[in-house]
Amino acid sequence: MDILTFFTPTEIMGLDGKANVIVVFDVLRGSTTIVAAFKAGATRIIPVVDLDQAVRLAFKLGREDVLLCGERNGEPIEGFDMGNSPLEYTPDKVEGKTLIFSSSNCSKAILASRNAKRILIGCFNNIQAIMESIEQPSTIYLLCAAKMGRFSFEDAVCAGMFIHIFMESYSGEIGLNDASSTSRYLYRQHHRDILGMLKQSSHGNFLTKLGRQQDLEYAALVNSETIVPELSLDKNYIIPTVAIKQL
Amino acid sequence: MDILTFFTPTEIMGLDGKANVIVVFDVLRGSTTIVAAFKAGATRIIPVVDLDQAVRLAFKLGREDVLLCGERNGEPIEGFDMGNSPLEYTPDKVEGKTLIFSSSNCSKAILASRNAKRILIGCFNNIQAIMESIEQPSTIYLLCAAKMGRFSFEDAVCAGMFIHIFMESYSGEIGLNDASSTSRYLYRQHHRDILGMLKQSSHGNFLTKLGRQQDLEYAALVNSETIVPELSLDKNYIIPTVAIKQL
Repeated sequence: MDILTFFTPTEIMGLDGKANVIVVFDVLRGSTTIVAAFKAGATRIIPVVDLDQAVRLAFKLGREDVLLCGERNGEPIEGFDMGNSPLEYTPDKVEGKTLIFSSSNCSKAILASRNAKRILIGCFNNIQAIMESIEQPSTIYLLCAAKMGRFSFEDAVCAGMFIHIFMESYSGEIGLNDASSTSRYLYRQHHRDILGMLKQSSHGNFLTKLGRQQDLEYAALVNSETIVPELSLDKNYIIPTVAIKQL
Repeated sequence: MDILTFFTPTEIMGLDGKANVIVVFDVLRGSTTIVAAFKAGATRIIPVVDLDQAVRLAFKLGREDVLLCGERNGEPIEGFDMGNSPLEYTPDKVEGKTLIFSSSNCSKAILASRNAKRILIGCFNNIQAIMESIEQPSTIYLLCAAKMGRFSFEDAVCAGMFIHIFMESYSGEIGLNDASSTSRYLYRQHHRDILGMLKQSSHGNFLTKLGRQQDLEYAALVNSETIVPELSLDKNYIIPTVAIKQL
């Protein structure tokens, strides 16, 4: 089997992933926030790229029945209910709710992945659960959401962690592309200090300057959750599933 | 000053590089072949993406006065004079000639870089010369040609070598983006065995299977040349320049 990593959403386009599982990583902060929202009791999350489309959808579904969530360039969006900090997503705000979620990079990556058998949302918080939810190892695509279409360190390290723990528990031969080998190497170099790595990364540094250091601390919690967000089969919204160890 | 690396041509698009030097890396094999062609006495090289356009240009310039050069997926192109192996480019074939050069990735990367102050073509053979030809350190963009729009290991390691030697000889502060930090890590891991690294890379492995192991050996020669190919100011063709140490 192969594990192929793609450092930006553009790199996965044009590939036929119908038979494959895709895991989308947007550690800072889309994936981490989606996991946090489900932990807090959100029932479904609809990823939307375009802001106007998000607002139109909110009114179509009933503005009072949904929460408009997301960010642009690390900042909350005017008129939206929630930003993109996992710490905002508490049960009193999101329990039982449908969330419309538009982040600069994460929503784009999820929607670029449409052509797949399964689409899972991964971050450091749920990496073991993600691995355990993949029943039959076929080719696995790891898609880094990146930042504005450019390589981001923290997503590559998280993909590398997936590869590392997968290879430790799978006995067969695994083929890696160049980006997978690189991610694995980056993870091995940084696994002792995930928070330090997040602080070093361009986007981590940017968020720290915005006063969001606590988001980095939250994102750095390895395997704190067992929730596996998955895009539903009709590919319209993300639901929470729970990992079942099969490997 | 900053050194910003981009792992694919798509990532540089939309950036204003007018004040910046861009170095394009396509180690296997575009950049390496361009350096070899100038070493063998070629006078200018016209990068062209589209094959039909290359052929039309050859007839416009006079078919007998130019050499049609390039490859698709590692193989020579039917009707073309030369492939993309640096070993083919000997003085008896290319001395005094204009070359029209169309490779799957290199030409695309060079032409994606148009919006820059200077555009240089780098590989392991001329990395020191490239560094010495950059007179006034401003922001430097390092553009990896990649393979079919996807991350390629050997280009990242070569960019990392540039960063490593630049940082050793430059006393000021240098800002790196995530891709630059990653490239530097990769170079440090592999600097003792560049040929081994090329063999490990996806494209190096592919070329070895095509029987092109000698091309890898040639590409792995660090600082064997002092030629710096540079896109001329009117941005239509590449000419050879020679490095002058200024740092």
